[in-house]
Amino acid sequence: MKEVAYEVRVEFGDCDPARIVWFPNFFRWIDAASRHFFIACGVPTWTETERTLGVIGTPLVDTHARFVKTATYGDVLQLHTSIAEWRNKSFVQRYRVMRGDDLLMECEEVRIFAGRRDDGSIFAMPPPPSIRALCE
Amino acid sequence: MKEVAYEVRVEFGDCDPARIVWFPNFFRWIDAASRHFFIACGVPTWTETERTLGVIGTPLVDTHARFVKTATYGDVLQLHTSIAEWRNKSFVQRYRVMRGDDLLMECEEVRIFAGRRDDGSIFAMPPPPSIRALCE
Amino acid sequence: MKEVAYEVRVEFGDCDPARIVWFPNFFRWIDAASRHFFIACGVPTWTETERTLGVIGTPLVDTHARFVKTATYGDVLQLHTSIAEWRNKSFVQRYRVMRGDDLLMECEEVRIFAGRRDDGSIFAMPPPPSIRALCE
Amino acid sequence: MKEVAYEVRVEFGDCDPARIVWFPNFFRWIDAASRHFFIACGVPTWTETERTLGVIGTPLVDTHARFVKTATYGDVLQLHTSIAEWRNKSFVQRYRVMRGDDLLMECEEVRIFAGRRDDGSIFAMPPPPSIRALCE
Repeated sequence: MKEVAYEVRVEFGDCDPARIVWFPNFFRWIDAASRHFFIACGVPTWTETERTLGVIGTPLVDTHARFVKTATYGDVLQLHTSIAEWRNKSFVQRYRVMRGDDLLMECEEVRIFAGRRDDGSIFAMPPPPSIRALCE
Repeated sequence: MKEVAYEVRVEFGDCDPARIVWFPNFFRWIDAASRHFFIACGVPTWTETERTLGVIGTPLVDTHARFVKTATYGDVLQLHTSIAEWRNKSFVQRYRVMRGDDLLMECEEVRIFAGRRDDGSIFAMPPPPSIRALCE
Repeated sequence: MKEVAYEVRVEFGDCDPARIVWFPNFFRWIDAASRHFFIACGVPTWTETERTLGVIGTPLVDTHARFVKTATYGDVLQLHTSIAEWRNKSFVQRYRVMRGDDLLMECEEVRIFAGRRDDGSIFAMPPPPSIRALCE
Repeated sequence: MKEVAYEVRVEFGDCDPARIVWFPNFFRWIDAASRHFFIACGVPTWTETERTLGVIGTPLVDTHARFVKTATYGDVLQLHTSIAEWRNKSFVQRYRVMRGDDLLMECEEVRIFAGRRDDGSIFAMPPPPSIRALCE
């Protein structure tokens, strides 16, 4: 199972009046880490996969996060990302947000490989084998 | 069980290159809806409860969200908020994000009533009966 | 000269560790107020003007803001928006951000009416007379 | 005159439906670059300067930005930051946002060194000589 790290500096403006990271910012970083996982595994950009495989991206359908410790500005965080499970028409992407050895947050998402119909609506495709091979 | 509605206009800048709401913005609105629930129930501001009850706020410890339909700019959303469960040292706050009759997203959070120790660290208090009475 | 008001509630998450609005959020609201100005004046959406006039939006080329007083969560702000000047290939949009009678911030922007060339690049068009007539 | 570079990766969620960086995000990065300039010059954190010099931070009072070229996700930007002018009770901080050799945006801000009065209000202090010496 491949694991990819994505580093984030926590800035002043990421923190709230309690002087800790305002939690929606964790999801901002997780979304960036999700895309970086595929890039780091060698998957082409979604612009290119749209042309070659019909995949326009990996929209989120479900997310579950557990907040363990807080962070504040000046901290440097590592988001460790992997794919925990492949399903017929979706996959589970997992994140551990660390500050060195400290676990701050864990998150598990269900995402789909999305194609687009002629009417503009999107649908879930089976994970393309060529993408799956790069990520395992 | 009290339910409070909080209305949001989706703006251009809330949307991503796929022309739909970028999902971390849903958590931004949910956090606002959480605070508004207490205000609408008659709970004083956390600044005041810090003085009277030692409660400095309701930090998030766990969140689980399911994304059903997308939204885009121009949409007006209603976030329906309630407290689904009271526990010994936490509570479950529930949100349904609607666009009229359409359910877009559901979210269930575990939050705590937080006090602050002398060393600055925070701890979970039992839900204060006076606050609970206002919210039920 | 038409002036349109756009109302904003300041939320906890809009504020920084100094407990005041983190300034980039003012620009978030100003961008929303810009679009609302045109909507309130009766200008169709940019999706529609793209079809009828070739106008895909009003990107920003210059902004100048002066911060007078701070705001914090719980505050309700009014953004008063107008067009201060029409130029050959641009226009000046002006904002006063008020909390009741208190001026918090002033901003003056230069924006263009943008068209899109076949190669995807954008260019500045003269302000379409039909749009100008609605906004004066 | 010292110049400090701060690097930013543009992410999918930083971009709007026009597929370019939504402009308030530039101000998010500029605020981070402002703080990093002082850190890189060896100025202690504001938490420490509050104790030693009474300086609680450098709030913004005026900003003027010019947008030259757009950016999109996948781009890596360099923010080059310097102090262009020292005034009696304020200073001018200047930013050039580059993508390699391409200038994307320029910004000039007036900020103050802020102290806090007993009633919680803030005031502009003369730039502390010890800080100025580190930044020149």
